Amino acid sequence: MPSEIREPMRHAAMRERNLAVLLRVIAAHQPVTRARLAALTGFTKTTVSNLIAVLAEAGLVHDGDMLHEGDRGRPGIGVAVNGAGAAGLGLEVNVDYLAAAVLDLGRRVRYRLLVAADNRGREPGEIAVALARLARQAADSAAEQGLPVTGATVALPGMIDRTGMFRAPNFPWHDVPAAAFTDLGLSGLKLPTRAENEANLAALGELWFGAGRADLGDFVHVSGEIGIGAGVVLNGRVFQGAHGYAGELGHLQVDPDGEPCACGARGCLERVAGRDAILHAAGLGDSLADNAVAGPLEPLSALTALLDTGDRAATAAVGRAGDALGRALTAVVKVLDPDTIVLGGVFSALARWTTPSVEAALRAGGLYGQVPAVVVSSLGENAAVLGAAGQVIEQIHADPALLLR
Amino acid sequence: MPSEIREPMRHAAMRERNLAVLLRVIAAHQPVTRARLAALTGFTKTTVSNLIAVLAEAGLVHDGDMLHEGDRGRPGIGVAVNGAGAAGLGLEVNVDYLAAAVLDLGRRVRYRLLVAADNRGREPGEIAVALARLARQAADSAAEQGLPVTGATVALPGMIDRTGMFRAPNFPWHDVPAAAFTDLGLSGLKLPTRAENEANLAALGELWFGAGRADLGDFVHVSGEIGIGAGVVLNGRVFQGAHGYAGELGHLQVDPDGEPCACGARGCLERVAGRDAILHAAGLGDSLADNAVAGPLEPLSALTALLDTGDRAATAAVGRAGDALGRALTAVVKVLDPDTIVLGGVFSALARWTTPSVEAALRAGGLYGQVPAVVVSSLGENAAVLGAAGQVIEQIHADPALLLR
Repeated sequence: MPSEIREPMRHAAMRERNLAVLLRVIAAHQPVTRARLAALTGFTKTTVSNLIAVLAEAGLVHDGDMLHEGDRGRPGIGVAVNGAGAAGLGLEVNVDYLAAAVLDLGRRVRYRLLVAADNRGREPGEIAVALARLARQAADSAAEQGLPVTGATVALPGMIDRTGMFRAPNFPWHDVPAAAFTDLGLSGLKLPTRAENEANLAALGELWFGAGRADLGDFVHVSGEIGIGAGVVLNGRVFQGAHGYAGELGHLQVDPDGEPCACGARGCLERVAGRDAILHAAGLGDSLADNAVAGPLEPLSALTALLDTGDRAATAAVGRAGDALGRALTAVVKVLDPDTIVLGGVFSALARWTTPSVEAALRAGGLYGQVPAVVVSSLGENAAVLGAAGQVIEQIHADPALLLR
Repeated sequence: MPSEIREPMRHAAMRERNLAVLLRVIAAHQPVTRARLAALTGFTKTTVSNLIAVLAEAGLVHDGDMLHEGDRGRPGIGVAVNGAGAAGLGLEVNVDYLAAAVLDLGRRVRYRLLVAADNRGREPGEIAVALARLARQAADSAAEQGLPVTGATVALPGMIDRTGMFRAPNFPWHDVPAAAFTDLGLSGLKLPTRAENEANLAALGELWFGAGRADLGDFVHVSGEIGIGAGVVLNGRVFQGAHGYAGELGHLQVDPDGEPCACGARGCLERVAGRDAILHAAGLGDSLADNAVAGPLEPLSALTALLDTGDRAATAAVGRAGDALGRALTAVVKVLDPDTIVLGGVFSALARWTTPSVEAALRAGGLYGQVPAVVVSSLGENAAVLGAAGQVIEQIHADPALLLR
């Protein structure tokens, strides 16, 4: 017997579930009268009215004009979702930039900022102060637009385990608590704030704002930066795994005799197909060493220029990266059999050169010719910060009672 | 905006959802009065009474004695789940046996049969006739026990794609429609019957009847037979993948220079760690060639006898198999990060010799020392057929309206 049947259902939990059900039905049928909501949900009119009162108190729905529904129904007040009732703040720390975005309850982008920064040269405390300043700026702009920011999510470029430890192989300081980056109080802002893996949030950004707006089904979104992570999206949700490490593509072994990796193994995918690995192999050195404030995708322009001239080393480097990524994705396909693979970050910028070898490797390793669709992301470096802000909105939709606790 | 918000919620769908909610609440609180059910769910008493009438008509719940709930409440009739209200039939075709099992609505085993059979020497039509005969026998026994069998699931040892094509690399006839095995009408039985991958059903069997009864979290259940499949269980459900191929562990590449595989690739896991591969490497020949009716796990007894004497070739063969499985599972861990790995089939029978090398390979490839728990299955060859029968029961719990359509 599954545990959800054995576990006694608590009254408060049922009420919270009913709030979420009602908010979804209102969103689907708005504007809609209380009488019709009762018919649609099977709740009593009293229950519907009580739940609406709670949603209205949280600012999530509001009453509008009188409505006449059908021929026989009495007129009633139409209830609708209040798009300006809440806003979500997304923040991002990456190796070479900071970013912020604000979305309203209807997931419209109301603010977006990206600032280049050499975060590898700073201590976590220094980065946290700069991030809190960005957050304050974004929240002030939202307030000017009449939007109450109700929560924030910070995207971090590394693994965050279940204890909240952030493992950042691409920073000189490696392991710090993720909470070091969520103290927005540093600039006087009081908001419930959580941190999440950048690759997972980029996948959600893609789902809500990018390629994902088409029907991608279950998909794996590859965030190719200096490291390579992936977000696994099943049934419209990120699958995190037992320790928060699901989708750690960068550390799949693609060459048993390959170079040692910071993770302790050797021949990991990101030693061949990560941004710096590609640049090195193409003879272009480290993307950040000489070019700290040029912006996150700037170093790639030198590479794409070389590729355009047909440079042999550069062409071989991206071909080898695409093939390694395709072979790693073949393992993903045999474990998960996703509908779609979305290529983001560096693999989006270099798509012309890498996608053919990714697809060839996937076809070569496919079972009975079944290979997932391969789609190139159009969001670039905005995916993670939009996903971070979107997640705050998603939480409100899934559990409106959140705003009351 | 997620699609479930945009999609208009239909009235019939809401009623079906409410039936499932009510059945779960009744199961959790039984016996329970209609008044208390209304309070627990937020539904009107009329809605509760109407839904109970539907569930009772389907034979899923029944009224019992009068109940006094609390001090102030009026006495009311207690409603409870009717354990004998429905039964599920599980069937299994495997390379060297056929099996059947019947479970009641409370998932108690009411009938179980396993018959050795060299199915590799038979045509699909011949197997289907034998299977229908087994099904008839099981349904008759259920009827004698007063149990109405409401549906059947057939476990098949190979991949079933979304078009219903069954790909059976371990049979001489390879590809046939899965429907070739679901025609129970061959022995006069009329039941909704579906076919599913044996590895997925074995994982569900483990969840409901085996190691899974403890809290395994998200897990991957490895079915090691002649082929190697795996069932991926996330949030208590099998994850199937886009084409039904999720968990195709047997075709993960463990040796780029290895032997060619029937799937077209080379160095696949099952060429090293499948049952026949291990027996060959141990110098014991093919498990079925000379031993067709000895029963599914019989050929392993010769191997375990050799292992007990410390035979060098046999010890090397199982060590190599365990290491290859561990390395394949390392890829699974980096993609999915499951809480637990359950080793079933041949890896359960050989656990003493293979589990240490599986665990060593997992530790060597683990990120930051995070490795899943490794558990050995206790169900042996019963896992898949119990999972098949259990799935019929699960479908009724999830969608009681099924019995009315």
